[in-house]
Amino acid sequence: MATPASSNSSSARNPELRRDKINNKWVIFSPARSKRPSDFKSRAPASDPNQNPNQECPFCVGHEHECAPEIFRVPPDSGPKWKIRVIQNLYPALSRDLEPHSGDLGSLECGILPGFGFHDVVIETPTHPVHLSDLSSSGVAEVLLAYKQRIIQLASFEAIKYIQVFKNHGASAGASMSHSHSQIIALPIIPPSISTRLTAMKEHFDQTGKCILCEVPPKELLIHESRHFISIVPFAATYAFEIWIIPRHHSAHFHHIDKEKAEDLGCILKLMLKKMAMQLNNPPFNLMIHTSPIQSDDSHLSCTHWYLQIVPQLTVLAGFEVATGCHINPVFPEDGAKVLREVNVEM
Amino acid sequence: MATPASSNSSSARNPELRRDKINNKWVIFSPARSKRPSDFKSRAPASDPNQNPNQECPFCVGHEHECAPEIFRVPPDSGPKWKIRVIQNLYPALSRDLEPHSGDLGSLECGILPGFGFHDVVIETPTHPVHLSDLSSSGVAEVLLAYKQRIIQLASFEAIKYIQVFKNHGASAGASMSHSHSQIIALPIIPPSISTRLTAMKEHFDQTGKCILCEVPPKELLIHESRHFISIVPFAATYAFEIWIIPRHHSAHFHHIDKEKAEDLGCILKLMLKKMAMQLNNPPFNLMIHTSPIQSDDSHLSCTHWYLQIVPQLTVLAGFEVATGCHINPVFPEDGAKVLREVNVEM
Repeated sequence: MATPASSNSSSARNPELRRDKINNKWVIFSPARSKRPSDFKSRAPASDPNQNPNQECPFCVGHEHECAPEIFRVPPDSGPKWKIRVIQNLYPALSRDLEPHSGDLGSLECGILPGFGFHDVVIETPTHPVHLSDLSSSGVAEVLLAYKQRIIQLASFEAIKYIQVFKNHGASAGASMSHSHSQIIALPIIPPSISTRLTAMKEHFDQTGKCILCEVPPKELLIHESRHFISIVPFAATYAFEIWIIPRHHSAHFHHIDKEKAEDLGCILKLMLKKMAMQLNNPPFNLMIHTSPIQSDDSHLSCTHWYLQIVPQLTVLAGFEVATGCHINPVFPEDGAKVLREVNVEM
Repeated sequence: MATPASSNSSSARNPELRRDKINNKWVIFSPARSKRPSDFKSRAPASDPNQNPNQECPFCVGHEHECAPEIFRVPPDSGPKWKIRVIQNLYPALSRDLEPHSGDLGSLECGILPGFGFHDVVIETPTHPVHLSDLSSSGVAEVLLAYKQRIIQLASFEAIKYIQVFKNHGASAGASMSHSHSQIIALPIIPPSISTRLTAMKEHFDQTGKCILCEVPPKELLIHESRHFISIVPFAATYAFEIWIIPRHHSAHFHHIDKEKAEDLGCILKLMLKKMAMQLNNPPFNLMIHTSPIQSDDSHLSCTHWYLQIVPQLTVLAGFEVATGCHINPVFPEDGAKVLREVNVEM
C-alpha cells in the first residue's frame, strides 16, 4: 500500500501554470509551498461524534415535525421507516413564494431580480452518526436517484434556469448541521461559473469536433475506472487532491442517469470518499454536481458533459485567490492522483 | 452612535438577486439567513496577542537575517531603524529564476506555462503587535507608497502581465504569520477575474460613454467621503460588509497614485479598518487592490478604474459558491453601509 509520504517527487519541481480548459482559468502549481503531499493531511477532521447530539437534531428520525415541509421520502409511503427525506430548507437562500421575473434576463437594466427559486435539503440517512460514505454503494445510489427525482420536479418550472446539487461535509466546509445531508438550489439565472464553462467547452468542441470530457485522460491522472465512470485528479486541479468523477459516455445532464449507472456511480463515489478520508485524515469536503442548464439547446448538449467534483478543504482561501480567481495548488495533480490511486480501502 | 442592532430592516425583506456589473456576476441577497447584521460579528477575532511571540518572529526587527533577501527598506539606508521592509517570500508561489514564456499566450495548445513570476512580502512595521490600522494615517500611506515603488519595479519586466497586491489578516483569512504584512504577486498572465472585469467595464463604457466607477453611487451605499476617495458597500457586494475604496477621479492604475493622494488614502483606509474592527469584532479580513493590467492599451485605460477592496471573513465558503461562483450574502449592502457609516471611531 502506498502512503502519501512515498510520493514526494513534487518537492524537486519548479512551479508551473496550467490552464483549466474546461473552466477557462489558470492554476498555479507551487510545490515549494509544501514538502510532500502528506503535509496536506487535514488537521481538523470533519467528524466530531459529540457535536450536535442525536436528541437535538431535527434531521434524525422521530424529529420530522421540527423540519420545514417534506417534499418526498424514500421509499415512498415508508412512514417512520424512511431512508432518505427531501425537505424544504428552513432558512432558504431563495423563496419559492415570490413571483419570478418574466422578461428577458439580458435586458435587465437595473440589475435586480426577485429572489425566486428553490432551496431544498436531502437528508441522506435517518441515523445521526452515519455519513454518506458509511452507506452501502446501493444506499449512495439511492441518494443520487433522490437528487435526480427532485431535479426533474424542479426542471418543470419555466423560470428555473440552473439546478445546483452540493454537499458540505464538516463545519469548515460550510455544513451548519452535522447530520449527513446535501442541498439542491434551483436558480432563475445561469450562474457565471456555468456560463464560463459552457463557453469554454463549446469553443473546444468547435475547434476539435470533440467533447473535451469525452477524451481519455492521461494515465497518471487516473484514480479509478468503473464500468460507466472514471475518476481523476484533473490536469489543472484548482484544489489539492480535488477529484472529478466523469461519465465515460457523453451525457450533458446528470438527471438523465439511469438506475444501473447510479448504482455504479454510488460505488465509485463511496470508493473516492473512503480513499480521501483515509489518505487525508477525514477532511471536511464539498461535493458538487456540475451539470448543464435546464433549457440547453442542441448545440450545447453535444459539447457539455456533466461531472461530479469532490474538493477536500485542506487550505484557507486567501486574498490572492479572492482577488484573481487564480488558485495556488501546492500538489501536482499526478502526485495527488498517485496518492489516491495506490491506497486500498475496504468497501 | 448607531449599533448594528439598530439596523434590522433587512429581516423583513424578500431575497433578491443583484448583478455586479463591474465583475459580471450575480449575488443572492438572502436576509432570511440572518436576523440582524449584528449576527455577523466575528466569532473568531483575528488578533491573538499570544500567537507567534516576538522572539520567534522573523519579521520582527533584529531578525532580518532569518528572512529571504530584502528588496528595499523604508526609509532607504535606515539600517535597524527601518519602518517598512519589502522582501522576497521565503516560500514563493512563483519563481523569479525561471525563464518566462516568450510566445503568444493565446496560442498555448498544451496549456502549460513555466511558473515565472515574483512573490514579495511587505513587512508593514518592525514591531510585532502593531497592526496596519494601528499605524498613523501617514504610516499607512508609507505602506501604500511602498506597494507603488515595488509595482513600478516589477512592471519593468516585459513578461509580467498583472500585479496583485493583497493582505491577509488573521489565520482564517489565510495569514500564516501574525506579524502585520502584505504580499505582492507579479504574474505572467492576466488572471480570469481581471479579464472578466475588464470586459464588463469596457462593455459599460461602450454602451454609456462613461466609466462605471466614475459614476456617483447612491447615497445609501456610501460609508465615507474624503478629498480624493469615497468608500462604499457596493450595490452587489459579494460578501457581507465588503468595502470598496474608490478614487473620485478616473485612474486605471493604482501605481499612478501621488503622495498627496496616498496620504488621503492612508487616512480613509485606516478609518475603514477601524470601523470594521469596531462593528464586527475585529474580524479576520482580506484587503486587495484591483488595478489594471500593466500593458493596457488606451481603449482600456479610459474604462477601467482601480479600487481597493476589504473583505471581512465572517462566513465560510461552501459548495454552492465553489460550484457556481454565485455568492449568498445575508446582509443587504445598504444595511451594511449604514452600520459602518454611523459608527464613530477615534483616529
